Amino acid sequence: MISFIYVTLFEEMMKYLFTNVLGSFILDQNMEILDSVLCKEGEGSVQKKEAESKLQQKYPGTKPLPAEKMLLVLSQFKNKKYFSSFYMHNLELTKTAIRNLVSEDNFIIQAIANINELDKVSNILSKRLREWYAFYAPEVVHKISDHVRFAEIISTKTRKELFQELKINPSESMGADLEKVHVEEIILLAQEIKRVYELRRQHEMYLQTIMGEYCPNLAELAGVTIGAKLLELGRGLKALALLPASTIQLLGAEKALFRHIKTGARSPKYGILINHPLIQNASKDQKGKAARMLADKISLCARLDYFKGEFKAKEYRKELEEKLGK
Amino acid sequence: MISFIYVTLFEEMMKYLFTNVLGSFILDQNMEILDSVLCKEGEGSVQKKEAESKLQQKYPGTKPLPAEKMLLVLSQFKNKKYFSSFYMHNLELTKTAIRNLVSEDNFIIQAIANINELDKVSNILSKRLREWYAFYAPEVVHKISDHVRFAEIISTKTRKELFQELKINPSESMGADLEKVHVEEIILLAQEIKRVYELRRQHEMYLQTIMGEYCPNLAELAGVTIGAKLLELGRGLKALALLPASTIQLLGAEKALFRHIKTGARSPKYGILINHPLIQNASKDQKGKAARMLADKISLCARLDYFKGEFKAKEYRKELEEKLGK
Repeated sequence: MISFIYVTLFEEMMKYLFTNVLGSFILDQNMEILDSVLCKEGEGSVQKKEAESKLQQKYPGTKPLPAEKMLLVLSQFKNKKYFSSFYMHNLELTKTAIRNLVSEDNFIIQAIANINELDKVSNILSKRLREWYAFYAPEVVHKISDHVRFAEIISTKTRKELFQELKINPSESMGADLEKVHVEEIILLAQEIKRVYELRRQHEMYLQTIMGEYCPNLAELAGVTIGAKLLELGRGLKALALLPASTIQLLGAEKALFRHIKTGARSPKYGILINHPLIQNASKDQKGKAARMLADKISLCARLDYFKGEFKAKEYRKELEEKLGK
Repeated sequence: MISFIYVTLFEEMMKYLFTNVLGSFILDQNMEILDSVLCKEGEGSVQKKEAESKLQQKYPGTKPLPAEKMLLVLSQFKNKKYFSSFYMHNLELTKTAIRNLVSEDNFIIQAIANINELDKVSNILSKRLREWYAFYAPEVVHKISDHVRFAEIISTKTRKELFQELKINPSESMGADLEKVHVEEIILLAQEIKRVYELRRQHEMYLQTIMGEYCPNLAELAGVTIGAKLLELGRGLKALALLPASTIQLLGAEKALFRHIKTGARSPKYGILINHPLIQNASKDQKGKAARMLADKISLCARLDYFKGEFKAKEYRKELEEKLGK
């Protein structure tokens, strides 16, 4: 009997510590709030721990609220006076979560997507440049087929110099003698194209830098451009690490794969891996095998990188080269 | 009888002067070549006149070959020794013709086509820039909807300055604190977009300059951009001058026009003229009428410009504004 009273008394004296986004609370056994330390708005959840320890010092011996009483405590917070605080604190938590979601993956995906777009852009502008410059010196346009070099040389050299260099007789040229005002306009376009190429190169160097740290194995074995495209298609390193190698082998060949599934056409052997030197250099009947082996190793690389493993890409590359090379 | 002998003798002494791409020739009455001055290859048809006058001095009193004897002279040039000369001289003539074909029309068409392409390019890159920068400061992306201004301000101001200017609380931003290496890459893209816009502006100034001389009426009434697009769609000033006003009214609305003809859908009222301020400002039920009247005057302008007429575009504009304005 005495012990029963004691237990009751003890229970009556029992205090619980409870913490949510609003702050920390001391509750009695009836779940009434006895005391609280609230977090200030706009300063985030870093304060939670502080509030908790403050109350623990003030009320030593309080226990954290046991799981079975969690539901009871909710009634306390149904009070409308808490609603706006809940809203503000949760909004802030969400914002913090979004802020912290940004990772290396995002930058790599943006940069490789922009490289693709810069390629598209420089193609559009280069075609226009060639058409425009052809009024001035059509022979130069025909002799230089590389877009980058074309933009480069016509923006640095005069027509006379180019004719001399390419051994074109000026009197035989079909180009008109344009006034300076017209030529200058064309050169401005060429300079613009040159800068687009420079930005593209800069993006590649940037990818090299961040991928060298973030996913050194992938960058080494797949190469920066293909590696970044794999991250883009796989939607990030984590997802890529979880993909089976056979899926990695076909990333970028989705169209052909679904055509295969729907119509029974031949199944694709590789997606964007086709651009990899190991596949490019393989003989025609070895390409499928090479793609499968490369995808296997790339899958391992992605896992090594995601789980912060050692650097093994060079070994893998050598192994592949030996198996495929001869 | 005497007079008959005299005529025969005279005819026997008759010499003809004949000129073709190879040079000038003196022919007797049997179409035999007596003497010639040949043009050198590679120096073009400018020499023709010279060769002719040289022979005329040497053989005064020669007559140009009459039209009815033209066919006879051809047999002289069937000789194979002339073939390669004919080839070379004709090639050269063709080249000269091509060289001289280049006109103001071509430059205007290239420039306006490139303006269209630069618009496309800056749109592609601006969308990427916004997506990329949103990791850093999504609030800035949402607050500034104009692409030009967006590229401009983020390439000149830091995030801190922007937050202050746009009254955004930095601690409430959903943007992540990116390292400098990432931010710099985004800024490089913004600077590139800025330069694309600058080139576009430069092209517009260029069009203003050359159209102000080449087609001042068209440039004044239609505006530089619309005027240049009309030249592009009409394929040059001459062709535009020969088009009926009703066709000019519908330039750029070909798709809708053919849909109208094929399916009987509503006929289009205007093509690219829709962008003209006079049409933009007209009330909805006046737009068709305004387009017709504007096309009329633009057609007149094109003709004035092509036939080097006076400058009347300002008068026309006033007339249209009076008729449509109130």
